[in-house]
Amino acid sequence: MDTLEPTDRSTVRRNRKRAVTDRAVLHALLADALLVHVGVASPHGPLVLPSAFGVDLDGPDDGGSLYLHGSVASPWLRAAGQPVCVTVTELDGLVAGRSGFHHSMNYRSAVVLGTARDVTDVGERDRALDAIVDQMIPGRSATLRPSTRKELAATAVLAVPLREASVKVRSGGPNDEPEDVAAGIWGGHVPVRRVLGDPVPDSDAHGDVPAEVRALVQASVQAR
Amino acid sequence: MDTLEPTDRSTVRRNRKRAVTDRAVLHALLADALLVHVGVASPHGPLVLPSAFGVDLDGPDDGGSLYLHGSVASPWLRAAGQPVCVTVTELDGLVAGRSGFHHSMNYRSAVVLGTARDVTDVGERDRALDAIVDQMIPGRSATLRPSTRKELAATAVLAVPLREASVKVRSGGPNDEPEDVAAGIWGGHVPVRRVLGDPVPDSDAHGDVPAEVRALVQASVQAR
Repeated sequence: MDTLEPTDRSTVRRNRKRAVTDRAVLHALLADALLVHVGVASPHGPLVLPSAFGVDLDGPDDGGSLYLHGSVASPWLRAAGQPVCVTVTELDGLVAGRSGFHHSMNYRSAVVLGTARDVTDVGERDRALDAIVDQMIPGRSATLRPSTRKELAATAVLAVPLREASVKVRSGGPNDEPEDVAAGIWGGHVPVRRVLGDPVPDSDAHGDVPAEVRALVQASVQAR
Repeated sequence: MDTLEPTDRSTVRRNRKRAVTDRAVLHALLADALLVHVGVASPHGPLVLPSAFGVDLDGPDDGGSLYLHGSVASPWLRAAGQPVCVTVTELDGLVAGRSGFHHSMNYRSAVVLGTARDVTDVGERDRALDAIVDQMIPGRSATLRPSTRKELAATAVLAVPLREASVKVRSGGPNDEPEDVAAGIWGGHVPVRRVLGDPVPDSDAHGDVPAEVRALVQASVQAR
């Protein structure tokens, strides 16, 4: 099994039974997620920003590449050479225990630690930006015109290696105290999932909803 | 209007038109969210961890209190006196622009910056832990037995003031280039929402699903 390589800093210290070292779980989580939370250092302390992202498991970084992008004017995208933390979390359920202490959430999360790298190679930048679009809507990038020189000049792209990651998974019901279970109190969990609604065309949109957008929404409806 | 007070470090530098300084928007976002991402400094760089949370707008911190909890053995909960960043993000839609550059997401996010405070007062700890349970399932804490001394001793509670926050909101369709719109290409957005499934009782659960759990799921079904 191709496992992750947690180092001292990324080793899961709490809830070791929830730590999963199967790289396939990380890849499946990244495939499901639509956004990440990026931690960067600032002179005033850590900053955590939500961001779109893309993945290229064959990217040049050790373990594959996770890509972030944004305006070249964004201070947080000047993190090249700095340690960053990219966390992805999918909430799968609410765990209604028989005590406050045993309330919990079902989730899959990955905490990726690495040094950010500026992506400057023209080909890699193109692939990274396509990956970010396709993370939202699979197959979308192939339907779009190429980026203009002006658009590319306005866009910063960072890569983070996927080598060092801590993955945690919780599922199922509460782990209640035996005496609370014996007391006959109800306990269980409530599944949580993400659903896509019908596409909303722009007021100036022409023609049918594109196939890749229809397919994405249809897959979400079937998953209900 | 009661506005937030962005300081230099929390002022939204990019996309100012997406910055919202209405405190009511922050409060509504916090009411909708089920988890936050907490940024803490570590010797190796920033760490970002997903966490449950609770809110007490009448809490003792300036602007009200956001509460985090966890095991006393969790290193990240030893952040009292340190600057922390608590970010909450609700994803509302995928924006399918007519170019890669104009793909985006609809979301509401708040980046809360503050100094973490250990919550040691017995009454405040009780209220904080109840708020965290009720954030998941409103009304749930009142149905549960009190925490035991052992449970309380194993639990660390941190408070973060809600005074300093940057709130951003994006909604609607893409802001495409006029030439792409004129070319007759389709553009629009896809709504995203969170849906709760039917409660799953434990194998050893007795009796009906509690009213507050039923009400939460019912509200989600109606919102579909």
